Amino acid sequence: MCELLGMSANVPTDICFSFAGFLHRGGGTGPHRDGWGIAFYEEGGYREFRDPHPSVDSPIARLICDYPIKSHVVISHIRQANVGGVRLANTHPFTREMWGRPWCYAHNGQLNKEWKALPLGAYTPVGTTDSEHAFCFLMGELRRAFPEPPTQPERLWQHLHGLCERLRGLGVFNLLLSDGIYLYTYCSTKLAHITRRAPFGEAELSDAELTVNFAEHTTPNDVVSVIATEPLTHNETWQRMAPGELLVWKEGEIQTRISTDSTSE
Amino acid sequence: MCELLGMSANVPTDICFSFAGFLHRGGGTGPHRDGWGIAFYEEGGYREFRDPHPSVDSPIARLICDYPIKSHVVISHIRQANVGGVRLANTHPFTREMWGRPWCYAHNGQLNKEWKALPLGAYTPVGTTDSEHAFCFLMGELRRAFPEPPTQPERLWQHLHGLCERLRGLGVFNLLLSDGIYLYTYCSTKLAHITRRAPFGEAELSDAELTVNFAEHTTPNDVVSVIATEPLTHNETWQRMAPGELLVWKEGEIQTRISTDSTSE
Repeated sequence: MCELLGMSANVPTDICFSFAGFLHRGGGTGPHRDGWGIAFYEEGGYREFRDPHPSVDSPIARLICDYPIKSHVVISHIRQANVGGVRLANTHPFTREMWGRPWCYAHNGQLNKEWKALPLGAYTPVGTTDSEHAFCFLMGELRRAFPEPPTQPERLWQHLHGLCERLRGLGVFNLLLSDGIYLYTYCSTKLAHITRRAPFGEAELSDAELTVNFAEHTTPNDVVSVIATEPLTHNETWQRMAPGELLVWKEGEIQTRISTDSTSE
Repeated sequence: MCELLGMSANVPTDICFSFAGFLHRGGGTGPHRDGWGIAFYEEGGYREFRDPHPSVDSPIARLICDYPIKSHVVISHIRQANVGGVRLANTHPFTREMWGRPWCYAHNGQLNKEWKALPLGAYTPVGTTDSEHAFCFLMGELRRAFPEPPTQPERLWQHLHGLCERLRGLGVFNLLLSDGIYLYTYCSTKLAHITRRAPFGEAELSDAELTVNFAEHTTPNDVVSVIATEPLTHNETWQRMAPGELLVWKEGEIQTRISTDSTSE
């Protein structure tokens, strides 16, 4: 299995603290030695860094820790390969453009062999993973249903939830997805989140000896949410998502919650 | 105007030497302070690094110089903005997936305002540059003409040359484009190239005090070609491309040459 890390914030925020703990799981405190990647939506655009080597040894990962990139949305992934060899083309996150926006995706889990039959539309996988195939399926289906950006995003969210449920029917499918405005997190088995806002306190990483006092790095109106496969700190209370639940995040807040047998709130 | 740098090689080769000279033009010896980017096709996939800051001051650019990434094909660009503000979304190279391959593109030049009327198909620009619009036009037209990868690539090359000629009709359009196998270089006004092969000699950069003896870093069968807006070394003989000429590179060698009033050789 792999691990996921996401962030949604209402002000451009760097993810250095969470990423410092997360990357230790990539061959340090965790078994996820088969590559890592991180994507940033910044005010002026989108960029990603990917490396097929363990994050704990990666000079690019160290650069990300030392060179704060301020974002509204971040998606990161460390990989323990199951389907698809250890190579750059199989390293998350994956990206495709739809409606003139870069969509970014990372997956934790494994699908049964039925994934090969998932129909593809406008998008074709570059690598050989079940994850990227599922992403291309998902994006192709969204684009087929919405050739233009929907004027009512709620319809898109409901459609996305249905597609995620279909993928969960094929195995384990924990998802991070974003178009740079919204961050979508879907839980099949395991995802936890925390929202930090004033009054900010101290946080201590579980995976590395690092403490941060967020009060020193924030202003009173900042809202920053972090979503991860497992809680990254041991002195804060993280919320666990329920299986079948899709959360739609915007600017650090949960905009909508869609669960298996509910409509949006 | 911007500057372009490309490489095609028959063995995985790092571009540290050429890039060291090239990045000095990004705010050092040249006026191209408005961002830079570099894309690598490696044996296992594709990745790119982009930064909207001057390359000469960029910690990411320094990492690229110090961390040799071995590639068959590289495309790099430093920007002096004309159309589109200085922001990440306007920073080359641009990428889109077609036929399950990542296509990468960088443009030097400026098109007249007719570029806004270039029809778009499957691909939509994320930023606001004439360059990315022309890329989306070009990719959309190729995909429309070839919904599947052509069995005879020569037909694709002829079609690409025709599209480049059409874009040259709108202004200055020097191009680097690749699908990771072939590197396409099209000259509107200015592109030069050099092919290095045994016996390898010494090269001295024009823009920085750096000399390399390629004989120490190569084997006798290596063939490495470098393509740039202006020659990067002053003690070697670079070939200048002719306006209207498209070169198709593969593994360091010119596979095909298509010029304005010729068919492929």
